[in-house]
Amino acid sequence: MDRPRRRLALLLEYDGTSFCGSQLQANGPSIQGELERAIESMTGCFTRVALAGRTDAGVHALGQVACFDTDTSYPCQAFVGGLNVRLAQSIAVRAARKVEAAFDPRRQATARRYRYHVLLSGVRSPLLQGRSWRVPAGLDVARMQEASQCLLGEHDFAAFASPEAARGSTRRTVRSFSIRRCGRSLFVEAEANAFLMHQMRRTVAALVDIGSGRLSLDEFRRHLDQARPGSYEHSAPACGLCLLCVRYDPPLFPDEREQG
Amino acid sequence: MDRPRRRLALLLEYDGTSFCGSQLQANGPSIQGELERAIESMTGCFTRVALAGRTDAGVHALGQVACFDTDTSYPCQAFVGGLNVRLAQSIAVRAARKVEAAFDPRRQATARRYRYHVLLSGVRSPLLQGRSWRVPAGLDVARMQEASQCLLGEHDFAAFASPEAARGSTRRTVRSFSIRRCGRSLFVEAEANAFLMHQMRRTVAALVDIGSGRLSLDEFRRHLDQARPGSYEHSAPACGLCLLCVRYDPPLFPDEREQG
Repeated sequence: MDRPRRRLALLLEYDGTSFCGSQLQANGPSIQGELERAIESMTGCFTRVALAGRTDAGVHALGQVACFDTDTSYPCQAFVGGLNVRLAQSIAVRAARKVEAAFDPRRQATARRYRYHVLLSGVRSPLLQGRSWRVPAGLDVARMQEASQCLLGEHDFAAFASPEAARGSTRRTVRSFSIRRCGRSLFVEAEANAFLMHQMRRTVAALVDIGSGRLSLDEFRRHLDQARPGSYEHSAPACGLCLLCVRYDPPLFPDEREQG
Repeated sequence: MDRPRRRLALLLEYDGTSFCGSQLQANGPSIQGELERAIESMTGCFTRVALAGRTDAGVHALGQVACFDTDTSYPCQAFVGGLNVRLAQSIAVRAARKVEAAFDPRRQATARRYRYHVLLSGVRSPLLQGRSWRVPAGLDVARMQEASQCLLGEHDFAAFASPEAARGSTRRTVRSFSIRRCGRSLFVEAEANAFLMHQMRRTVAALVDIGSGRLSLDEFRRHLDQARPGSYEHSAPACGLCLLCVRYDPPLFPDEREQG
C-alpha cells in the first residue's frame, strides 16, 4: 500500500561553530547534511532537505526553517524526538509541522530576522566567546544608531554585500533595524524581506567603524548610495551572528518565540 | 632591593563547565589552581589565591573576586593581559586593582548576587546547553514568584542547603529575589549577604517544583520554617547557575557592570 507523501517543515536551532554553513558542503559538516543524515537514519529513506535561509560557516540560528518530503506514517511530532536523538548536540529540531506539498521555505518566506552580538570589552569573555564579536569599549552608540536609520526601507545594498551577491538584484527592504545596549553587550537586530550574502556582517562592521570613528556618516551614506558591489570590505566575524527567525504569512510556527 | 609586597584583587569571569569548582581540588582543575599556575608562570613566584565565593563544579561566574600577594613591580593592569594569555579560554581576568594588605575577599564582601537560568522547553537547546537547566514549559510562574517572596529578609535557610552547611549558622539575609520570564527563559536572580552551600540550586529546584505543582506553597513554607538541615533534597543542576557579582562597600570594581 502506497503511503501518501507529505511535506514537513522543521524549526531548527543550531550552534554554527563547528559547521561549514547551512548548505551542503564538500569540505565539512553542514546543517543540511546533518539533517539529511538524521532523516535517513530515522526513516530509512534519503530525502533532500531545503532550508529557508543560508547561513555562513560559524553563524548560529534560533529559528531556521527546513523542509523535506516523507512517505512515512510517523506523526509530525515524532520527528522532533526522533531527529533530536540522531542529531549532534549542536543542532536541535524545536518543532515540526505538515505544510502544503508545494511549500518552498525560501521563496515563501516574507522576512528574515537576524541578531548580531557585539561585546564591548577590552578582555575576552569565556561566557560569550563563540557567540559574539569582541571590540574595545568606547563606541559612539548614538552615532551608530543615527547611521543605522539610513538603512531602513528599500535600498540597493550592493555596497554591503559580497560582490558575488551582485549577480542578481541587490535591492532589499529593511523593515526594522535596532541597536540596543545591554551592559557590555550591543545587540544589532535587523529584519528584511531578505538579506544579500554577508550583508548583515558587513553592515555591522561598518556600524562599528562608525562607532569607533574610523568611518564617517557621510562616507557610510556614500557607500550605500553609490551601491558599488562589495565596496565596503570589512566584515564582522560569523560567530556574532544568529538567524533569529524566518517569517511566513500566516506564521508557520506561531507558538514558538523567536528569541532565545 | 626588596620590593614592597602588594595585595591585588582580580575580577574574574569563567565558564565553569570543565572545572571541579572554584577551590583547589585533588580530582581535577579548579579556578584557584589555574590562577595560581598562571600567576606563578607570570611572576616566577608561587602565591596562594583566595576567592570571594565558592562555586561548585560546573557553576559559572561573571564577577568572582580573587586576591593574591605579589612583590613584583608590574603595574596592576599588566596582570590583566599577562594572566589572560596564560589562562585557558574558559577563565578571564576582567580587571585588577590594588587593595589593602589585610583585604579579605570573602569576609569583607557585603553581598553576593547569583542568577539561575531555567530554560522552559520540551527540546534541548544547542545555544543554551551548559548554561541553563531545561525543564518542560508550563510552569506557573506567578505561583513561583509568590513563593519566592517568602525568602526575602533574614531566615534560617537550613532546609534549602546542603546538610554539611549546618555546621555553622544557617541564617542568611536575602536582600532581593526576582523571577523574570524572557521568551523561553526564566531568570531567577537573588542577592544575599551570603549563601549556604547549594542554597541557590536547592531553592531553584523547590521553586520549579512549585511551578510544576509538585510542591505546594504550604509545604515550601513548612520547609523554610522548620529549618531542618537539607530537608529539601532536590537540587537544580550546576550549569544553570552563575555568580554575577560580589559586592563590597565601597565597590571594588565600580567601572565593571555586573551582568554579561
